[in-house]
Amino acid sequence: MSAGAPLLVTLGDAAGIGPEIVVAAAQRGELHDAVVVGDVGVLRRAAALRGGAGPLAVLEAPSDDAPPGALRVVVPPGLPPGLEALPWGRVDARAGRAAACCIEAAVAAVQAGQGRAVVTAPVHKEALAAAGLPWPGHTEMLQALATVPGQPRPPVRMMLANPELRVVLVTIHMALRDAIAALDFDAVLSTLRIAHAAAGRWGLAQPRIAVAGLNPHAGEGGLFGDEEIRFIGPAVEAARAEGIDASGPYPPDTVFMRARRGAFDLVVAMTHDHGLIPVKYLGVDDGVNVTLGLPFVRTSPDHGTAFDIAGRGVADPSSLLAALRMARTLAGPGAGP
Amino acid sequence: MSAGAPLLVTLGDAAGIGPEIVVAAAQRGELHDAVVVGDVGVLRRAAALRGGAGPLAVLEAPSDDAPPGALRVVVPPGLPPGLEALPWGRVDARAGRAAACCIEAAVAAVQAGQGRAVVTAPVHKEALAAAGLPWPGHTEMLQALATVPGQPRPPVRMMLANPELRVVLVTIHMALRDAIAALDFDAVLSTLRIAHAAAGRWGLAQPRIAVAGLNPHAGEGGLFGDEEIRFIGPAVEAARAEGIDASGPYPPDTVFMRARRGAFDLVVAMTHDHGLIPVKYLGVDDGVNVTLGLPFVRTSPDHGTAFDIAGRGVADPSSLLAALRMARTLAGPGAGP
Repeated sequence: MSAGAPLLVTLGDAAGIGPEIVVAAAQRGELHDAVVVGDVGVLRRAAALRGGAGPLAVLEAPSDDAPPGALRVVVPPGLPPGLEALPWGRVDARAGRAAACCIEAAVAAVQAGQGRAVVTAPVHKEALAAAGLPWPGHTEMLQALATVPGQPRPPVRMMLANPELRVVLVTIHMALRDAIAALDFDAVLSTLRIAHAAAGRWGLAQPRIAVAGLNPHAGEGGLFGDEEIRFIGPAVEAARAEGIDASGPYPPDTVFMRARRGAFDLVVAMTHDHGLIPVKYLGVDDGVNVTLGLPFVRTSPDHGTAFDIAGRGVADPSSLLAALRMARTLAGPGAGP
Repeated sequence: MSAGAPLLVTLGDAAGIGPEIVVAAAQRGELHDAVVVGDVGVLRRAAALRGGAGPLAVLEAPSDDAPPGALRVVVPPGLPPGLEALPWGRVDARAGRAAACCIEAAVAAVQAGQGRAVVTAPVHKEALAAAGLPWPGHTEMLQALATVPGQPRPPVRMMLANPELRVVLVTIHMALRDAIAALDFDAVLSTLRIAHAAAGRWGLAQPRIAVAGLNPHAGEGGLFGDEEIRFIGPAVEAARAEGIDASGPYPPDTVFMRARRGAFDLVVAMTHDHGLIPVKYLGVDDGVNVTLGLPFVRTSPDHGTAFDIAGRGVADPSSLLAALRMARTLAGPGAGP
């Protein structure tokens, strides 16, 4: 990443709330150090919903000059036509394709030093699938894009954070049955290493990391499942031997409560919903999704495309604003407008 | 149950915090319409920890007369000797055996009309197992005890409730892998029927019941698992056809937040921790466990034996007090002292 370069904000699925929350952020002056990566027609349609976004400056590259106060936009290559006429709130292969084009362009730019972080608006998994794309979500796509040809894929993990809880997930977008099958010693240990290293970069040199078990009561001594005994506990021990302040496995139903009260800095959860249920329980307004392990900073709101309210101009941009703040925290301040 | 009969309060695992929270409830005057079912030595040891419990009246039967102000106790048959000398905070087969004796006696009494509800202090699953008992927890044991010989076991479900969230669980004390295998159309539909019927008895004639999915994003249209498509959705439809106000399946990570904000009266969760993580997230002080589907009312605190603090006299009785209040709500007021 390049310290003075802008944040790169992708528009997400054109049929969802992504474009309008980006406009709402611009209206609040929160994109002063950012460049939007997306389709101009989609952005204009969203601006019309929210009472306008002011002048747009369509740039060739994120670092190009723009008139003061203009919302800077870079149009990625490969966008399908007619995006501005897509029906709101429907799965559409064109929207999936366009969302992927935005992400590819943003990653290329940040890796070329033209951006200092990527902030992504929501994509829809079914739209990505309809477009024939092999990734179930942002995290997997970013991991693939960050892979150096001929090298193994960098291990990445999704972190969800709000002001009172940070959760790092070992498994994410797969059937719960498959998630259980995917868990092993290496998956848990590498999650602990990634979480520990990432926390160091944002100022927590020795984070207290709690590991939630997989089974009820963390297996109750083996009565309700043996994953805790077979590999979760051993991975915690291995991490401790490396100097990581990890503990557990703890019963899933109380460890998040304990972390919220300050007993731990981070919780590692085995499954998507063990981790996301508590992060979202008090509301998604302040929640931020951070991808740990990439060679660049990437944050996003922790909600989805919200197809049920897309196109009404009522979507709340709070989580995107929190994602922008988190990106600045992790990547440093930009050069400003 | 018998309307004027006392609440029957079991002592739970003698090495855990059960006895002392029962004493703490008595000290607060909250057992005025209750009879404790347990070992006198265990009760005296707990009373000594908490500064005394006043005079005890050891009765032959729950309905026997007792001096005003005395804490009434019934000693169940079959207790092993020496319980008052068990080390605190350790799994012990004798404690498991004694806890089961208390439950058996309380169920026998409530079914004979000598009690109007059963309120249970925590048991330890490993202690029950050490005693050679086949039940992983209260719920399964109560279900077995309530079974009429020659009849099928009555379907029961665990509900966890606090002032802002009620959750009914389809599966409980088993490995997550086994829970997934145990889920089917009938399990979901009977949960909806039990929850609907129970809510009617406590004054919610037409409860709005949300069904949480099993998989991330409730399967995202089949991309992340098919249980929602194969049987969870069809069970919701079947319940609706019976006049039950059920909806879903919803993504697990946001449905509890929505219920907390008032969108639903009850949430049905597929697994122990999907349901209990949100119920416990804000603290277990006010949480109550209710067994739905039994022929009598049974409530308990929603925490465990807390071996880490047992014997120190510091355990918080709030959840037991909430369980006593819930039992009175569900079973009606007693005759009083």
